Amino acid sequence: KRNAKIDTESLITSILNKDITALSRAITLVESKNPKHLKKANIIIKGCLPHANKSIRIGITGVPGVGKSTFIETFGKYLTNLGKRVAVLAIDPSSSITKGSILGDKTRMEALVQDENAYIRPSASGDTLGGVARKTRETITLCESAGFDVIIIETVGVGQSETTVHSMVDFFLLLKLAGAGDELQGIKRGIIEMADAIAINKADGDNLKAANLAKTEFTRALHLYPAKDSNWQPKVTICSAVENNGIDTIWGIISDYIETTTKNKHFSVKRNEQNKYWLIQTIEEKLKSNFFNQSKIKCELKKQLELIENNKTTPFAAADFLLNL
Amino acid sequence: KRNAKIDTESLITSILNKDITALSRAITLVESKNPKHLKKANIIIKGCLPHANKSIRIGITGVPGVGKSTFIETFGKYLTNLGKRVAVLAIDPSSSITKGSILGDKTRMEALVQDENAYIRPSASGDTLGGVARKTRETITLCESAGFDVIIIETVGVGQSETTVHSMVDFFLLLKLAGAGDELQGIKRGIIEMADAIAINKADGDNLKAANLAKTEFTRALHLYPAKDSNWQPKVTICSAVENNGIDTIWGIISDYIETTTKNKHFSVKRNEQNKYWLIQTIEEKLKSNFFNQSKIKCELKKQLELIENNKTTPFAAADFLLNL
Repeated sequence: KRNAKIDTESLITSILNKDITALSRAITLVESKNPKHLKKANIIIKGCLPHANKSIRIGITGVPGVGKSTFIETFGKYLTNLGKRVAVLAIDPSSSITKGSILGDKTRMEALVQDENAYIRPSASGDTLGGVARKTRETITLCESAGFDVIIIETVGVGQSETTVHSMVDFFLLLKLAGAGDELQGIKRGIIEMADAIAINKADGDNLKAANLAKTEFTRALHLYPAKDSNWQPKVTICSAVENNGIDTIWGIISDYIETTTKNKHFSVKRNEQNKYWLIQTIEEKLKSNFFNQSKIKCELKKQLELIENNKTTPFAAADFLLNL
Repeated sequence: KRNAKIDTESLITSILNKDITALSRAITLVESKNPKHLKKANIIIKGCLPHANKSIRIGITGVPGVGKSTFIETFGKYLTNLGKRVAVLAIDPSSSITKGSILGDKTRMEALVQDENAYIRPSASGDTLGGVARKTRETITLCESAGFDVIIIETVGVGQSETTVHSMVDFFLLLKLAGAGDELQGIKRGIIEMADAIAINKADGDNLKAANLAKTEFTRALHLYPAKDSNWQPKVTICSAVENNGIDTIWGIISDYIETTTKNKHFSVKRNEQNKYWLIQTIEEKLKSNFFNQSKIKCELKKQLELIENNKTTPFAAADFLLNL
């Protein structure tokens, strides 16, 4: 018991002293399935909390092939050159099977991996997106306490993961490629609505003209969306991560955003809303799983569904029945 | 007790004998807030269930001004002329305040109101969309038991009501107007994705050319969407409810749909999925309201939110705390 206390306290102290090994150990506790580890993790997070919340959290999404890892490497290096400390995390719903896409990317982000002001952490795995989200949120807290100024959270651009990332970042960047006129079609509209900026990547060589066209098209399209609560008009820009072009413009946009939303208080309002969202979300998930995982309910639910199928009861009468078991 | 039994039994018998007065009385019981009435309503619905499920359920949506009531009147008359019996219901989230939009429409749908093979029922009101949905679903059961072949459910085209209607109908029809090139912009994309057919209404006089243009544009746009589970490719057509043009085409599309989805079993699969959706939905709503309406939780939730705001706890730790109260 006493040892555990010393252990967590020394970990907290080390994290606050920007000790990366301690940070990694704490994240491993957060990601563990062992209840004892999770108990320790909770103590560490509580200890770190007063020192967290000071970074800029940036979500980055885009379909496979858009050049996310090259972009993150170039962008990350740009930030460390400005004297910032950058942590890169990922949310990958498929990670429980593939063990995390960014783990593979890590070998590709060689320059960033070797940068002592950067920290790349493979995505947490978990059975549910909610579970992965919790671990990522707690990892953000730990990274912030370890003095990282910018937290980049990458997502693979499939399924619900963008919504999850969007609900834990301050700024959401969508990477796109200039395409064959189908820039606005085939893309999930919800993702465009979430974007605070769209960057058309690979705007180099023969692609430059198409990228500029895509920029015009997206800019026009974005004006058709209703204004955001933040009063921020999403920006569109082009860049080439490979040629290191336009990266400064993107950082300029993000800095503008932080300035604007800090001034109009949206920055903190949004963080509070996100906290509330995660609180309510966690409770609702737990209420549902507590109810539906009862073996009694599992068994009776099946029976009620059969009764409904045979016109013997209605969904509403069945719900009343199950709730009163 | 004995009287109540006779009462409900005679109501069931009368409904099955297509007695409209009995049907209306039963719907009034369904819509009542009096627990005694709801108990009776549940008995009646149970008695009617084996005779329900035989109609075609059609959802109709469109923004105000698209001509929904004129369309429903013309379409309804077309169906009764084919020898069908038609019930018209509505889901209107604002109805608890305005007492139902279709109640107003009823005075406009004069020909249909006077048609003995049509039954128009003002929308149920309720505090929650879930509550309104339940009442509407149960009203569908009653109408089907009273021998109505086609149930039309209208919605006002705002907020969540389309999703609600979509989850209780077999076929979802979106009414549109030809506009100034903005057919695809400004419309909630989710609604287009739900549509099994889009009808450009008011395709008459000077509007005809624009309607045909809009038809081409929507047809092209619909092809960009992924194929539906039903293997049904949504259709686009033009019509003029005022001039009674194109109504037969719409009924032809719906008949095709029913034939296709009956053959490939999607029709019954979808109804089962809808039943399951309403079962799960009802349970989840109740679990949440049971939890969050406890005065203890209300009070502590507020405190936890303050603690989060002051970096004293995380949303996840707060959720654990509230769940263990």
